[in-house]
Amino acid sequence: MTSLNEACGVFGIYSPSSVAVNQACFKGLYALQHRGQEGCGIAFNCDGVLSVTKDVGLVADVFAYPPELPVGTTTMAIAHTRYGTSGERSPENVQPLIFHHMLGSLALAHNGNLTNDTQLRRTLELKGSLFHSSSDTEVFAHILTSHRLVCQSLEDALSKTMDEVEGAYSLLVMNEDSLIAVRDPHGFRPLCLGKLEDGYVFASESCALDAVGAQFLRDIEPGEICIIDGKDGTIHSNTSHCKSVATSLCVFELIYFARPDSVIDTISVHEARIRSGAFLALEHPSQADVVIGVPDSGIDAAIGYSRQSGIPYGIGFIKNKYIGRTFIQPEQGERESTVRIKLNPISSTVRGKRVVLIDDSIVRGTTSKRIVRLLREAGAKEVHLRSSAPPFLFPCYYGTDIDSKKDLFACNHDHQSMETILGVDSLGFLTTDQVIKLSDHPGIGFCRACFTGEYPCPKEA
Amino acid sequence: MTSLNEACGVFGIYSPSSVAVNQACFKGLYALQHRGQEGCGIAFNCDGVLSVTKDVGLVADVFAYPPELPVGTTTMAIAHTRYGTSGERSPENVQPLIFHHMLGSLALAHNGNLTNDTQLRRTLELKGSLFHSSSDTEVFAHILTSHRLVCQSLEDALSKTMDEVEGAYSLLVMNEDSLIAVRDPHGFRPLCLGKLEDGYVFASESCALDAVGAQFLRDIEPGEICIIDGKDGTIHSNTSHCKSVATSLCVFELIYFARPDSVIDTISVHEARIRSGAFLALEHPSQADVVIGVPDSGIDAAIGYSRQSGIPYGIGFIKNKYIGRTFIQPEQGERESTVRIKLNPISSTVRGKRVVLIDDSIVRGTTSKRIVRLLREAGAKEVHLRSSAPPFLFPCYYGTDIDSKKDLFACNHDHQSMETILGVDSLGFLTTDQVIKLSDHPGIGFCRACFTGEYPCPKEA
Amino acid sequence: MTSLNEACGVFGIYSPSSVAVNQACFKGLYALQHRGQEGCGIAFNCDGVLSVTKDVGLVADVFAYPPELPVGTTTMAIAHTRYGTSGERSPENVQPLIFHHMLGSLALAHNGNLTNDTQLRRTLELKGSLFHSSSDTEVFAHILTSHRLVCQSLEDALSKTMDEVEGAYSLLVMNEDSLIAVRDPHGFRPLCLGKLEDGYVFASESCALDAVGAQFLRDIEPGEICIIDGKDGTIHSNTSHCKSVATSLCVFELIYFARPDSVIDTISVHEARIRSGAFLALEHPSQADVVIGVPDSGIDAAIGYSRQSGIPYGIGFIKNKYIGRTFIQPEQGERESTVRIKLNPISSTVRGKRVVLIDDSIVRGTTSKRIVRLLREAGAKEVHLRSSAPPFLFPCYYGTDIDSKKDLFACNHDHQSMETILGVDSLGFLTTDQVIKLSDHPGIGFCRACFTGEYPCPKEA
Amino acid sequence: MTSLNEACGVFGIYSPSSVAVNQACFKGLYALQHRGQEGCGIAFNCDGVLSVTKDVGLVADVFAYPPELPVGTTTMAIAHTRYGTSGERSPENVQPLIFHHMLGSLALAHNGNLTNDTQLRRTLELKGSLFHSSSDTEVFAHILTSHRLVCQSLEDALSKTMDEVEGAYSLLVMNEDSLIAVRDPHGFRPLCLGKLEDGYVFASESCALDAVGAQFLRDIEPGEICIIDGKDGTIHSNTSHCKSVATSLCVFELIYFARPDSVIDTISVHEARIRSGAFLALEHPSQADVVIGVPDSGIDAAIGYSRQSGIPYGIGFIKNKYIGRTFIQPEQGERESTVRIKLNPISSTVRGKRVVLIDDSIVRGTTSKRIVRLLREAGAKEVHLRSSAPPFLFPCYYGTDIDSKKDLFACNHDHQSMETILGVDSLGFLTTDQVIKLSDHPGIGFCRACFTGEYPCPKEA
Repeated sequence: MTSLNEACGVFGIYSPSSVAVNQACFKGLYALQHRGQEGCGIAFNCDGVLSVTKDVGLVADVFAYPPELPVGTTTMAIAHTRYGTSGERSPENVQPLIFHHMLGSLALAHNGNLTNDTQLRRTLELKGSLFHSSSDTEVFAHILTSHRLVCQSLEDALSKTMDEVEGAYSLLVMNEDSLIAVRDPHGFRPLCLGKLEDGYVFASESCALDAVGAQFLRDIEPGEICIIDGKDGTIHSNTSHCKSVATSLCVFELIYFARPDSVIDTISVHEARIRSGAFLALEHPSQADVVIGVPDSGIDAAIGYSRQSGIPYGIGFIKNKYIGRTFIQPEQGERESTVRIKLNPISSTVRGKRVVLIDDSIVRGTTSKRIVRLLREAGAKEVHLRSSAPPFLFPCYYGTDIDSKKDLFACNHDHQSMETILGVDSLGFLTTDQVIKLSDHPGIGFCRACFTGEYPCPKEA
Repeated sequence: MTSLNEACGVFGIYSPSSVAVNQACFKGLYALQHRGQEGCGIAFNCDGVLSVTKDVGLVADVFAYPPELPVGTTTMAIAHTRYGTSGERSPENVQPLIFHHMLGSLALAHNGNLTNDTQLRRTLELKGSLFHSSSDTEVFAHILTSHRLVCQSLEDALSKTMDEVEGAYSLLVMNEDSLIAVRDPHGFRPLCLGKLEDGYVFASESCALDAVGAQFLRDIEPGEICIIDGKDGTIHSNTSHCKSVATSLCVFELIYFARPDSVIDTISVHEARIRSGAFLALEHPSQADVVIGVPDSGIDAAIGYSRQSGIPYGIGFIKNKYIGRTFIQPEQGERESTVRIKLNPISSTVRGKRVVLIDDSIVRGTTSKRIVRLLREAGAKEVHLRSSAPPFLFPCYYGTDIDSKKDLFACNHDHQSMETILGVDSLGFLTTDQVIKLSDHPGIGFCRACFTGEYPCPKEA
Repeated sequence: MTSLNEACGVFGIYSPSSVAVNQACFKGLYALQHRGQEGCGIAFNCDGVLSVTKDVGLVADVFAYPPELPVGTTTMAIAHTRYGTSGERSPENVQPLIFHHMLGSLALAHNGNLTNDTQLRRTLELKGSLFHSSSDTEVFAHILTSHRLVCQSLEDALSKTMDEVEGAYSLLVMNEDSLIAVRDPHGFRPLCLGKLEDGYVFASESCALDAVGAQFLRDIEPGEICIIDGKDGTIHSNTSHCKSVATSLCVFELIYFARPDSVIDTISVHEARIRSGAFLALEHPSQADVVIGVPDSGIDAAIGYSRQSGIPYGIGFIKNKYIGRTFIQPEQGERESTVRIKLNPISSTVRGKRVVLIDDSIVRGTTSKRIVRLLREAGAKEVHLRSSAPPFLFPCYYGTDIDSKKDLFACNHDHQSMETILGVDSLGFLTTDQVIKLSDHPGIGFCRACFTGEYPCPKEA
Repeated sequence: MTSLNEACGVFGIYSPSSVAVNQACFKGLYALQHRGQEGCGIAFNCDGVLSVTKDVGLVADVFAYPPELPVGTTTMAIAHTRYGTSGERSPENVQPLIFHHMLGSLALAHNGNLTNDTQLRRTLELKGSLFHSSSDTEVFAHILTSHRLVCQSLEDALSKTMDEVEGAYSLLVMNEDSLIAVRDPHGFRPLCLGKLEDGYVFASESCALDAVGAQFLRDIEPGEICIIDGKDGTIHSNTSHCKSVATSLCVFELIYFARPDSVIDTISVHEARIRSGAFLALEHPSQADVVIGVPDSGIDAAIGYSRQSGIPYGIGFIKNKYIGRTFIQPEQGERESTVRIKLNPISSTVRGKRVVLIDDSIVRGTTSKRIVRLLREAGAKEVHLRSSAPPFLFPCYYGTDIDSKKDLFACNHDHQSMETILGVDSLGFLTTDQVIKLSDHPGIGFCRACFTGEYPCPKEA
């Protein structure tokens, strides 16, 4: 029930079969729809010619199934879902982006945010570069092109580009004859590789591999450039930027962004959430009759809390299945009642009971407050709110939309006033130390900057 | 994961405020979207003039929020969601229907199916009646009109109509100056009444009352005609057809059709499903490591099974949240892989485990078979399938789309061959006796004809 | 430049080839688009099953080319374009209408207006009939159905129906096994028959026969029922209602409604308009330098005036070719400037000249006034306005939208004040006697009721 | 009836009133729709921020009236209609284009074609420039930007850009604080300036000034840079590139492209066409009974021929008014009959007559051949075809789509075989010398390269 949003899901495929490419792009986008609902697109490589179909809207709005293919043989494609903020749903921001140059065309699909793009852009503009958008992806494309003019290969040009750009990027690049996945050395955003019978698939999350029937091979390593040759389907990796810095996977991928059926950097998202619930039960126990989760991403943690505490798990809310479809713009004074359309409590679960309520996080506090009130109206005797994320205290520069402290609930209230405002009997957050333990693989480093202010990669001035 | 479908949700409102009427219709339809995804519509009474807006598609496709109102004062409206079969998504079948006559206009929204409409229609046609559709609702309107010509009031005409028509109907009728809810004497389909600050709401399910902020008052009684006067908002009931026959609420409303947060004829749908799971655990116990449910309607029963058996509850599948939006028409040989787009197993829950899998029902068996296979591929060691409905053996004539025995899995296979075909280690169904106990209110009678062949109201020859 | 509108064009086809039926319907509708721009539809007879596709909008909005056909063999179809008034562009008024009955289904497409439909409808309603619309076509269908129940054939039922209904109707009827054209005994609206290589076509105007490559055979006679057998394509006529009354072709078909390339009841529309210009030159000569016409329907008459008078013909206005597409709703005070978007004067034709301006008619006077002002601004020294229709003084009951005297310019002003208001140097109308001579075939009778008040068929009280 | 197409119409406005800007853009585009039917767009300057709305389709498809404005004060806008070729109706080619740079944003709307853009582009790409399209307008923007980095003003940068680019460009440029019109020194494409009560308008043709109620001030001179200051609405011109070369207005603007009610470089298009008809009558007289023109652009010349020869003018064809709306894609073997939907002969004009038929030009010959056949079928005894353009023998590089000799009728056939193929009794073309005399202003120079091969500005190798 967070209103945090992240920029984008990416999907790429190489397969000798045009039909397979086409069907997989739709299914892959569909599986990654949760990573971005503002717009989506597919760039096809049809007999070496790049073209793109994209628009604002959900996958099912923009594409029929199967999507229309260019006439010819399409053996590669990259696809993108873009996250939805309220304001500027403009078509030119929808990816993949295509760029033309005498050295050939390039299509890019990007998840993440560069941190030094403003400075890079200024330098490029002073040399005469012209931009169509304010996108950092366009900056990446310009830097890449400047290197292509002097490099032997696109791989080399990408490697040089990685020397210059900083920040978060899980990026797919396609040109006339290759399909390339690039992940920044910190590995902020996920990216993985799957195997088809006769091809390969890249995707932001492994759930997209499942959706297209691909076998999970491995995660793309932070710093890796992974190249599929479009002529023969061979694959090789350039790891020259790997292990140059400590890895910093965004911990919020585990807590909220990713689908629970995905496995990211060897961590099962579902298990990580179960674990977060268990930690909450240890750190913030409560005397209660039932544990419920806020759908969808609080459910797993609620089960973890129940298992650890022994308090029975129950279903407290029904979420309207169709809510993804519409954009009700509530009128003045109507906002309160609108939450009911999305989320309706089941009275028989909570009436007369002491309820532990697990939410994935508390960002601005407004939604949590409304949900607590719904529970009270449905007859809950006590409400003990537990957040499976620590308090948000710092902006994120790596591809989410927490971009200032202004609206952050925890920045503006102490613990007791938070409890009062939310109307709960007790309130507990996961600790920043527990966050590190969400993975059972000790080697994985996390970015926790939004909780701690320790940025793996500083934002340029 | 059933592919059973039911005809329709209905929603009606009286309120002195045009804005309230308008917003409520959208929200009410939205809350009843699960009862019909083929099409939807709203008929407005604006200063005594009836008009309708309707089309094929989901609520969010057909209407913006708030819907456009006619110019003037709209104090009453009825709305309808229609269920989706694959074939004939034709606009003329979408309700509400409007009929014009010298005595005034009528709008009708109908959930259910008449059983003697063919015979009634023949009689009407012999007298010169002309039809625009093959809908039984149009037959109802003709019968009603013939009585209006000789009756004192619309209420009397409705009462006389109820003497003639047979079958299932939870029906809303609106004319120039009243809004009326009618429920057939068997009470096959649900219908309830809620109170707004300054008005009333009728809805198929109580979840729609919640969505519009109405307070649940009571169910409309089987056989009741409940009339709201459009001039002053007073309400009164005609109960002359009540208790004329035993009530027969469709048990499948509890098992599958209704939303778990609805309360129908005093039964919490959620609780009924928890109870079905508990019955299954008693009747068909199993040695297993985890209990999972097929989303969405198997989840509650899985929790019930877990509680009764002590086997831990887990989340076995993630359902794609956006699937309602699209209609992937899988191509030849692709069907197998398509289920993966909708439903993806969480390996960490089932790998190496003995799994109890709860589904709401098994109709044709094909979906269940694919889901079992997904679990096996995800590493489940054993799969014990439990169905919270008894085997389907007979067609339904009261508003669902089981209309022949031909495709019914249980009609064509014995128990052992069902297990083999489905690929399960064991298979268990709820018994027809347990079905009766899904309600904890002993007074409620159920229609179980699809399991037992005992029809409360026979289909005309 | 008239703002008079007429209800509808009709088109029907029998051909053994589904493709031919389909293509011809689109082309035929397209050729009849000028008769109605509000909506359009096609009813197909596919293997004896009637279905309809229709919507508000122009032909090119509603249909792709070729239109989608039902699956099967379609050998008959009827199609309709509906005229556009500003207000109620509701989908249910769009034709063809389809009605179902135990005796079979019927599709109807109607041009004209019944004059006793209110009375007939009341009688039907007292017998229990129920209506979906306020359309007189639905009344026709009910009467027809009541006769079908007792008649031997659809032909007999149609004949009996013609005994009852009064007014204007050029009507196409299609059922499971025949395609029938019916024209009222007065012959208010045109209807003709054409021959394809292996089939037949009915159309409101002969230009639609040309558009589909059909050879013009003859006009359907006033009072005729012309029946094509859907099984073998044979054709026969029932003429029992022919010559029962004097014919009264709407003279405004020649002056304004019909396309100039059509031939109606043996009269070339183009020639009739040339002739009207010549009559105007004889009746209202003027000393002038150039004769121009208001596009499109004043052009022919301007050529006639030029030929008769010897004053050179010129092109005075360019009409925006794309104007059919849009519905600019001018805001307050903007109306004056909007006419310029549609019609722009060519200064070089009129600057410093005495101009004879021919318009087809003057209904409310507002458009004429604006056009005269445009000419003045473009430098015209004198403007002599000539109308190829007499002054409108009476409402029309036969299918046009002159339904009251209230707005009629000539009803409210004497000749001199009309000249003053319009800003012209002289004003001249065709006389009601000349109207009769627009045809060079002495046998044709005309309806001139809107000019004379002599109604061939009175409107029921 | 030519199938020649030209690239685009441009329209720009400065006015202190947002509403005026908005309404005028729609009306201006509408008046220039004939110059491009593939797509259209409007770029607004709202409080110094540039944004664009554009899409493929006609003006009425892309915009409602009035178009939606950005929120704020919009005092400047540029708009564009793009010509339609069959193939690539891709949205990214639709103009205006917007470019972003640290020096500010730029919007461009371009009519014409550069002749050295390939070479310029190569140079830019070697310096690292990246392109989004294959458009020469994007090349112009890059050159312009490179100069802005070192120039004092946008005016200076434009002037330097004009030193580099060659070919045809009537271009509107808008940035944060000015609106600029630029016309290439040859003046291939028209561009004019009009005055509003409190603002200015630029347009490709004067008919667009009429449509928005602007007063024609003057043509933009070949080589002129005309700048409106967005702050105070003052206007000034930079004429440093004027008179650097002889002017070469595309003669086909007069013969075919422009609307007859436009005045271009002081020449009335209507008068020029009348004159072409008179020249044809002198050069290619014929013994005939009637002169008719192929609508729309042959009509004026037919009147000119009639006046000069004394042979009566008649209307030979009716053009379907709605044809602009649709894109019938005729199937195999159907092409012949499709012309009838667009153009239908009036038999009474031509039957038994010797007909002079005037068309604007003969490009591939296929359409002319079909039109002649229609006349024969309608009964014409003789057909004498006259073309108001000389034979096309050379490709055009300045913004039309004659880009090779391959399909040009006159390149592949001698005079006699052209007559035989077209099925005419005689054939006559305007001479290349007469073309020069279409203007009565001796100072105007014309580009006649497509007839003579003498290119004012050569195409780069």
